[in-house]
Parts: sequence; C-alpha cells; structure tokens
Amino acid sequence: VYYKRDPQTFFRHLSPTQQQELLQKLKHDYREIVLGYFINDVAIDQRLNDFVNAAFLTDVSAAQVVEIHMELIDEFSKQLKLEGRSEEILLDYRLTLIDVIAHLCEMYRRSATGEM
Amino acid sequence: VYYKRDPQTFFRHLSPTQQQELLQKLKHDYREIVLGYFINDVAIDQRLNDFVNAAFLTDVSAAQVVEIHMELIDEFSKQLKLEGRSEEILLDYRLTLIDVIAHLCEMYRRSATGEM
Repeated sequence: VYYKRDPQTFFRHLSPTQQQELLQKLKHDYREIVLGYFINDVAIDQRLNDFVNAAFLTDVSAAQVVEIHMELIDEFSKQLKLEGRSEEILLDYRLTLIDVIAHLCEMYRRSATGEM
Repeated sequence: VYYKRDPQTFFRHLSPTQQQELLQKLKHDYREIVLGYFINDVAIDQRLNDFVNAAFLTDVSAAQVVEIHMELIDEFSKQLKLEGRSEEILLDYRLTLIDVIAHLCEMYRRSATGEM
C-alpha cells in the first residue's frame, strides 16, 4: 500500500482548533485500544492500524503518542486509587504502547526507505 | 544533521555473516543501555543515540529491536530465577525499550518527512 501524505494535514500545519480536534480523536482512539488490548477484542488490530495510519498521515511523533499514553495512565491511576484497586494493570499497558509505537515506527521506516 | 543512508549497509542487504556481526553488536550495545538506564550512567544518552543511529543507518525495524529486547529479558529472567531474585525490575526495562524505539521512530519520521 502506498500512502501519499499531504503536508497540509500534518499536525504542526493545522490550526490550533484542528490540532485540538485531532488530539482529542487520537486520545479517544488510543483509549479504546488500551482498554481492548488484553480482552481479545476482535476489532483491536483494525483499531490499532487505524490509529497508526492517522498518526502517520498527520506526521505525529512517537513522543506525542507517549504523551497521550502517559496522560491516559495518569487518569486511570487516579481512578484506580479512588476505587482502592491495584495499579498493576497499568504496567501491562506499556506493552500496548510498545506495540503501537513499533507499528508507527514501521510506517515511517517504510516511508523513509521508499518501500510504500 | 543529515544522515545519508547507503542501502548497501541495510541489514537485509548484508551477507549472513555480516548480519550476525551487526546483530551481535546491536545486542551488546542494547544490553549496556538497559543495564545503565536506571543507574544514571552519564554515558547513557550517548549510548542510546549511537544505538539508534546504528539501527537507522542499517534500516533495522522496531520489531527487530523488540526481538533483541525480548531475548535479553529472557536471559535476565533465567538468571534472576536461578538466583531466586524478583523479576520485577524486568518490567521497568520496558521503559528503556519504549525510549529506544521512540527515538528510532523519530529518526525514521524525520527521514520520511525530509527534515534531515
């Protein structure tokens, strides 16, 4: 598959409002991926691919994805503490992050190498 | 910094012997990074950058880095079990992996976007 990217859709070229909208969408989608990752959600591969495609097309960096992850973990952590539950599961979510940024890295690698 | 990559040095274009040598070097260097990551090794940033540069120049994928990581964790896990010690630290090493592939992703992203 060849993905022609339009620099006009790159995150850093969007208006502040559009950036906020994109970020909200990425956060929402990443949350769904994390929550579905360990329960054998059948749609998880598709969701992960869609997320990675969206990040690639808008030239989002792995650092931005790590930030989205950390914000979400922070939120989950507060919730688990409120409920007096163990935060151990949050360590497992790092595997989800590794999977997501490895996929994103592969998109950029192929793009850089002209394999697409 | 502009990194012109020579496809002849790409991992998949090396001879089997050269591939083995490169893999051994990457494994060795990754091991040093993991072992130095949480002890404030002053040389750690440089080591991490060197590793990521080497991977980028040879067009190594994030999946290959994940494999190197898992092999190393496997080895550490056996050792810790033999010594009757907790394997908890191994979970922390995931943070090292996240850092490494996020950096690698950034190299490929910049290369794909022509920012180098």
